[in-house]
Amino acid sequence: MTHQTKVIEAGERLKKIRIVLVKTSHPGNIGAAARAMKTMGVSKLTLVEPNDFPSYEAYSRAAGADDILHQAVVVETLEQAISGCIWVVGTSARSRCVDWPVYQPVACVEKCLSCHSEGEVAIVFGRERSGLTNDELERCNALVHIPANADYSSLNLAAAVQILCYELRQAALKNAPVITPKRGKKHRDDVPASADQLEAMYVHLAAALESIAFFGTHEPETVMRRLKALYNRADLTQREVAIMRGICSAMQGKKC
Amino acid sequence: MTHQTKVIEAGERLKKIRIVLVKTSHPGNIGAAARAMKTMGVSKLTLVEPNDFPSYEAYSRAAGADDILHQAVVVETLEQAISGCIWVVGTSARSRCVDWPVYQPVACVEKCLSCHSEGEVAIVFGRERSGLTNDELERCNALVHIPANADYSSLNLAAAVQILCYELRQAALKNAPVITPKRGKKHRDDVPASADQLEAMYVHLAAALESIAFFGTHEPETVMRRLKALYNRADLTQREVAIMRGICSAMQGKKC
Repeated sequence: MTHQTKVIEAGERLKKIRIVLVKTSHPGNIGAAARAMKTMGVSKLTLVEPNDFPSYEAYSRAAGADDILHQAVVVETLEQAISGCIWVVGTSARSRCVDWPVYQPVACVEKCLSCHSEGEVAIVFGRERSGLTNDELERCNALVHIPANADYSSLNLAAAVQILCYELRQAALKNAPVITPKRGKKHRDDVPASADQLEAMYVHLAAALESIAFFGTHEPETVMRRLKALYNRADLTQREVAIMRGICSAMQGKKC
Repeated sequence: MTHQTKVIEAGERLKKIRIVLVKTSHPGNIGAAARAMKTMGVSKLTLVEPNDFPSYEAYSRAAGADDILHQAVVVETLEQAISGCIWVVGTSARSRCVDWPVYQPVACVEKCLSCHSEGEVAIVFGRERSGLTNDELERCNALVHIPANADYSSLNLAAAVQILCYELRQAALKNAPVITPKRGKKHRDDVPASADQLEAMYVHLAAALESIAFFGTHEPETVMRRLKALYNRADLTQREVAIMRGICSAMQGKKC
């Protein structure tokens, strides 16, 4: 493969990456993030309830990455931002109570790129001061943590976007064998479930467990968090989600 | 070597790195560079003829990395800035006429750190618009080039500092135990389930699914094979097996 072919192919893979910024306070950071993305060939930006956008400040800091801002999608909820994505990873500066797998940047971007033939993936960045809430982290399938100085880990938002986009480009250009999730025989419909499908499955599962009086004295949220952690680790396929939904319906006493 | 020892040792190695910014126009970029350095544990900053320093703008963008700015050394020439260094590498966005070796970031930081027992090394960053002059590049021993989008390679100064400091920290910590991917908080009983425990869980699951008439016209063996594949991929813990067994009992209408 020539270098030029590799660059073109890397570009195609980077098109499947969606950068999601949640409730960014400072418009300058949106512009700086767009610039960081463009330097590395990442172009899809989604903004969840930005404080001030579009704005002069964002365009000024974008310094020529205006096209990323023009095409940015502005939505009201994280659910809308990650809709249709097959894998969603949330950035987290510190260890959280949620029991999700935590990736280092290199492993995270390899996983992101390994999904590219199946659909889009989202990398979600939280608010400048407080990051992502636990509710938002629970909408993610995994977390990524950029290792930093323990005494001062306060990466600027655009700096975090820059590091992950840099690693994405490095990995996309590397002719490295892509990690393929361990799966058995592939079936025609054996494709990864989307984040939406998983979320709908969790809602159904909670209702089904309720219907068989499983929760008893246990806190449903705690139990569901553990179950989500389990299923998120398994990278469910659409066929597996269909089986799980069938089990849920059967628990609810409905005909499968 | 414990993880803590490695972090301390990495810190010592990073102390030998001098970040040199030549004729920076915008004071905000000096502050943002200081913040980028501090997040990665790099602390020595030298400024050659900054346009405006010290300044409110620099301290504002440093966001808590004030100590780096307080200790920053301001000099008049690049010669003074690199005085005493045993290796000097200049950053360059494009190929230059000077015939110096050009390093990629990872190779560059490895070389920087390999020198640490002999003395300090300097990484030199040029002006925002025009980078380093040929005269300045000739004072360097090598160049480092951050691979970027050929159509838009305009990395912000602080973003370039961030990427190289991030790679420095990664390389300094390289021998540290990799935490990828890991689970979050460990529980006392959060140990891997044994093969026997899993097998007993599958037997229980098959009986429970039978009891809620899930299989219907489907072949139980085929469905169970798919479910086993799913749970095997997730590497269940003993606690998770207990939750699954609880769900099975609830399906069978037993008290959990």
